[in-house]
Amino acid sequence: MSQIAVQETYCDDVSYCYGCGRLNPRGLHIESFWDEEEGVCTCSFLPKPEYLSLPGFVYGGLIASLIDCHAMGTASAVAQMNAPETHSDTTGFRFVTRALKVDYLAPTPMGVELRLRGRVEELTSRKAVVKVELFANEKRCATGEVIAIKAPDHMFAE
Amino acid sequence: MSQIAVQETYCDDVSYCYGCGRLNPRGLHIESFWDEEEGVCTCSFLPKPEYLSLPGFVYGGLIASLIDCHAMGTASAVAQMNAPETHSDTTGFRFVTRALKVDYLAPTPMGVELRLRGRVEELTSRKAVVKVELFANEKRCATGEVIAIKAPDHMFAE
Repeated sequence: MSQIAVQETYCDDVSYCYGCGRLNPRGLHIESFWDEEEGVCTCSFLPKPEYLSLPGFVYGGLIASLIDCHAMGTASAVAQMNAPETHSDTTGFRFVTRALKVDYLAPTPMGVELRLRGRVEELTSRKAVVKVELFANEKRCATGEVIAIKAPDHMFAE
Repeated sequence: MSQIAVQETYCDDVSYCYGCGRLNPRGLHIESFWDEEEGVCTCSFLPKPEYLSLPGFVYGGLIASLIDCHAMGTASAVAQMNAPETHSDTTGFRFVTRALKVDYLAPTPMGVELRLRGRVEELTSRKAVVKVELFANEKRCATGEVIAIKAPDHMFAE
């Protein structure tokens, strides 16, 4: 498995995301790692105690955030592998979310490291469709389907 | 418009949600208000500066969280109106999310108070389907469709 998180490859300008930006001091610092052997992108995350919904269970908005940022990381990892020669210094492989769908299959327990697996189902020059599964204690608690698009130029600071 | 947030009607036991729990000191404190005249539930929220995605734009995971908690609040408000005589002290009108779908129609600018409008499309004794629109500067930036279910007994602490 890669030892460098996908988010480490994002340029500084686009590394302030609350979910996964390494330069956001108050953010969640979600990290995605490409697993070449399995052909999936993986993520581990232990929610802080305040991220609860009902007592004992993880907040659904955090689960949506994990799936969202991990899907963007998964899309970026696969896009980079498919076109390494076009690595751009800013906009190249930074995706943003066009649509997010999360199914909450079972309440997700607190106090457990969550594991996510992301897989690109479809990839074009502008878009990726990513499926994500979220597990707690080996039980699949949520699934996500995310449409990621390359971040458009007008979203980048001058 | 009601002066009491729907979340104020949740019992203490179920008021620790990171998104909308009034008893979570680190949470977002999302509040939903029933607007009887318009038949919708409204919410206003100004994101703190750290909740960005790319610089200048609001984090998609926060938008998902706002839509999620506001949809639960909307479902609770309508369920309470439809069955006031069965108000329970704990489980009665607390919904949890079964599925969440968010379409990000346009980048949502930072530094602007976001406004959400939620409407129940379908309500049964166990389930609600809620549609939510999110606006910034009067522009509709995101829409959500949320399936809410009454929180099952096994999610409540003994």
